[in-house]
Amino acid sequence: MIPLILYDIPSKLDGTYWSDNITKSRFVLGYKGLPFQVEWVELPDIAPRMKEIGARPNKLADGEEMYTLPVLSDPNTGALVTDSWEIAEYLEKTYPEKPIFSNKSKGLIYAFGNAVISLILPAAKFPIFRASQILNERSAEYYITTRQVMFKVKISEFSPEGPTRDEHWAIIERAFNTYKEWYDEEVGKWLMGDVISYADIFIGSILSWLKRVLHDNEWEKIVNWHDGKWGKLLADVEKECKKV
Amino acid sequence: MIPLILYDIPSKLDGTYWSDNITKSRFVLGYKGLPFQVEWVELPDIAPRMKEIGARPNKLADGEEMYTLPVLSDPNTGALVTDSWEIAEYLEKTYPEKPIFSNKSKGLIYAFGNAVISLILPAAKFPIFRASQILNERSAEYYITTRQVMFKVKISEFSPEGPTRDEHWAIIERAFNTYKEWYDEEVGKWLMGDVISYADIFIGSILSWLKRVLHDNEWEKIVNWHDGKWGKLLADVEKECKKV
Repeated sequence: MIPLILYDIPSKLDGTYWSDNITKSRFVLGYKGLPFQVEWVELPDIAPRMKEIGARPNKLADGEEMYTLPVLSDPNTGALVTDSWEIAEYLEKTYPEKPIFSNKSKGLIYAFGNAVISLILPAAKFPIFRASQILNERSAEYYITTRQVMFKVKISEFSPEGPTRDEHWAIIERAFNTYKEWYDEEVGKWLMGDVISYADIFIGSILSWLKRVLHDNEWEKIVNWHDGKWGKLLADVEKECKKV
Repeated sequence: MIPLILYDIPSKLDGTYWSDNITKSRFVLGYKGLPFQVEWVELPDIAPRMKEIGARPNKLADGEEMYTLPVLSDPNTGALVTDSWEIAEYLEKTYPEKPIFSNKSKGLIYAFGNAVISLILPAAKFPIFRASQILNERSAEYYITTRQVMFKVKISEFSPEGPTRDEHWAIIERAFNTYKEWYDEEVGKWLMGDVISYADIFIGSILSWLKRVLHDNEWEKIVNWHDGKWGKLLADVEKECKKV
């Protein structure tokens, strides 16, 4: 089998990867035991590089198009897939062993992802601010410029210490309280009990992102919630998905 | 088997029931083929009546307690259960035949419910306004007073025709566009493909509520979205759950 190619965004961090959406694809590839190589693309190079290889842009909520990563190239089939959800679907269909959407759970897991994001999104400016500090210079500049336009506020105002930062922490803690309630509904390590699914990979990717972009003492705060559940869950997902 | 007792809120509508949360319990009872009787309780009578029978109040998001319906009494076991989610759990555990949370889907379906509500909640003042018009006089008065406090605005300002109403319609339509995306993820009539689950009952209850409280021409608008999907889904849920 020829290794697949995952297009990812580098950073200054040890191991380089950091983006939650790209980590989702990384975890699915790892879980299914598929060999892959990474091609690193700095943020301002994504559009030209993706046009070059013929990847399609992503459709944003407002209907506009934008070149985003992850993109996955599979030389075994010729497929070139944009977007973490579509990549998950493609891999499940093409390599059905070790399913991530078992028992017809794809629609439920899609809604689950929406629910996860809607709870944490109001605090996203805090980890986004932190992410702007771990990118390589060219990407950081591009990231800051585009995010300032997106949120209509200067990067220094994204999550200033004080009441704004406190509010972001309160939102993140409430989100994890709710995630905990969901996990408590079934007995077992995973959301669906004894078998990992894309729902756990989704949460694991957000945890990985927070661990990577936040400062160590900030991540420790999350790890201390719910008797260490989230640090343990991330370790379980990483183990199951053979993080490279 | 002694019939169970479902405490429900009456209305002026044919068939009387209308509340989406209580309809959830009604559908679960029907799906599992459990005999039940209804005790009708007008809104201002809920707290005294529930104290009388010893039902516990519900915990609201802000930690306050409030007596709400549905409440289910099961004379076969002595159980007295408050809240639609807890009733669903109780019925699934006590009467496991015809499962509504098959394949360890309870956590996913809990999150699904959160996602459904978070999308439609910003437009809820429109159906809530309509609901205030179909209740019996004492309940209507109580409902209007409490909802005005809850939303900090006069009932006449809940969803006035014009830009506010249009925005409510836009939110509802966007919500159903997203529900449609979730349903499209798996092949089959139900969210999980070939087998009904509490997720379909959840959506069915919201559809039933909209059909009951909205004007006929307003419900027709929803029925016409997505090639009639929502009218058909409600009919399917009602059929499967032997609506009484």
